[in-house]
Amino acid sequence: MNNKSGAILVVSGPSGAGKSTLINAMMKDLGDCYFSISTTTRPMREGEVDGVHYHFVTKEEFEKDIQEGHFLEYALVHSNYYGTSLKPVKKALQEKKLVIFDIDVQGNEAIKKQLGDITTSVFVTTPTLTELENRLTTRSTDSAEVISKRIAMAKEEVKRVGEYEFLVVNDKLEEAVQTLTTIAKAARLKIEHKDVQEFIQKWVDKA
Amino acid sequence: MNNKSGAILVVSGPSGAGKSTLINAMMKDLGDCYFSISTTTRPMREGEVDGVHYHFVTKEEFEKDIQEGHFLEYALVHSNYYGTSLKPVKKALQEKKLVIFDIDVQGNEAIKKQLGDITTSVFVTTPTLTELENRLTTRSTDSAEVISKRIAMAKEEVKRVGEYEFLVVNDKLEEAVQTLTTIAKAARLKIEHKDVQEFIQKWVDKA
Repeated sequence: MNNKSGAILVVSGPSGAGKSTLINAMMKDLGDCYFSISTTTRPMREGEVDGVHYHFVTKEEFEKDIQEGHFLEYALVHSNYYGTSLKPVKKALQEKKLVIFDIDVQGNEAIKKQLGDITTSVFVTTPTLTELENRLTTRSTDSAEVISKRIAMAKEEVKRVGEYEFLVVNDKLEEAVQTLTTIAKAARLKIEHKDVQEFIQKWVDKA
Repeated sequence: MNNKSGAILVVSGPSGAGKSTLINAMMKDLGDCYFSISTTTRPMREGEVDGVHYHFVTKEEFEKDIQEGHFLEYALVHSNYYGTSLKPVKKALQEKKLVIFDIDVQGNEAIKKQLGDITTSVFVTTPTLTELENRLTTRSTDSAEVISKRIAMAKEEVKRVGEYEFLVVNDKLEEAVQTLTTIAKAARLKIEHKDVQEFIQKWVDKA
């Protein structure tokens, strides 16, 4: 029962807060992780790889999967679908992996509704809004228009930080990685992931 | 916000499961802890020290404290009072310490009712009932009668493991210490311990 068990870790936070960097470093530390890749109907962008950044599918395929109940959660954003397929998540949990979702505030809400107690949720952000602006400007992958959209979205997202169990302020990267790793380790230890009834039975009815 | 903050860790489990050893080792690893010492009206036993094992008080003193609302929780067991004073706990939390309670299942229930989300609860037990019997017999501080009472109590306590957030099976001491330390670290990171409204305000209204 002290052994690793499957668990779910939801990581949200503004674009530019460093979620991907933190998650990758944490996964390296932990091992036995499964990073959930979303499925989308939006067109593939330059540099994106199918099955790495997203599973790219057609609208018809996506809607068929909705009807057949294959999604853990999904949303329609600017007439593109985004969703999380249930099957690989179930498989990873059975293999006692830590399933990681890099997902927005709405996604967290949907997953919480479906999986409740077995998820652990973390909100990652920069120390300040100014710092987020600096990072978004410095990485210069986005146009000024996209940056200002991201900033506006970040403000709305941060207001919902109270819906998360944990808050990680990504100030010093090394420290933030350690913090996230500690949270992930504890997530795996939560009693919700263990078969409590079986444990009690075995413990009380000694052979 | 990544800094340490005050938090509450409740540790329960059968007598003989190794709670004290684990807690002491964890406190050494963590630092900045406050171990809550219970107050009792039961007579001091040989080897016990006032203020170390318990705060020993008279029945009159205890009942006065109850009336004045000084207890976080208390119970009457075999006509002796046992309780947790609120004042030192509040002080330790203000000093951002991790407050640790070594308390039974009833005590956990009472603390949860009062402090809800800000507590993290851990149940510590041996891998098996047989192992608990072995440990209780080997340490030989208790009479056969006391041991059989403890075993009966252990069975009842283990049935309530589902009321805890975490389960630590104390099989290999080193591993169990690490597990408990990870849980305690995560307990400190819980968002309930942080001033979320203040964080949002500062973050959104950048200077």
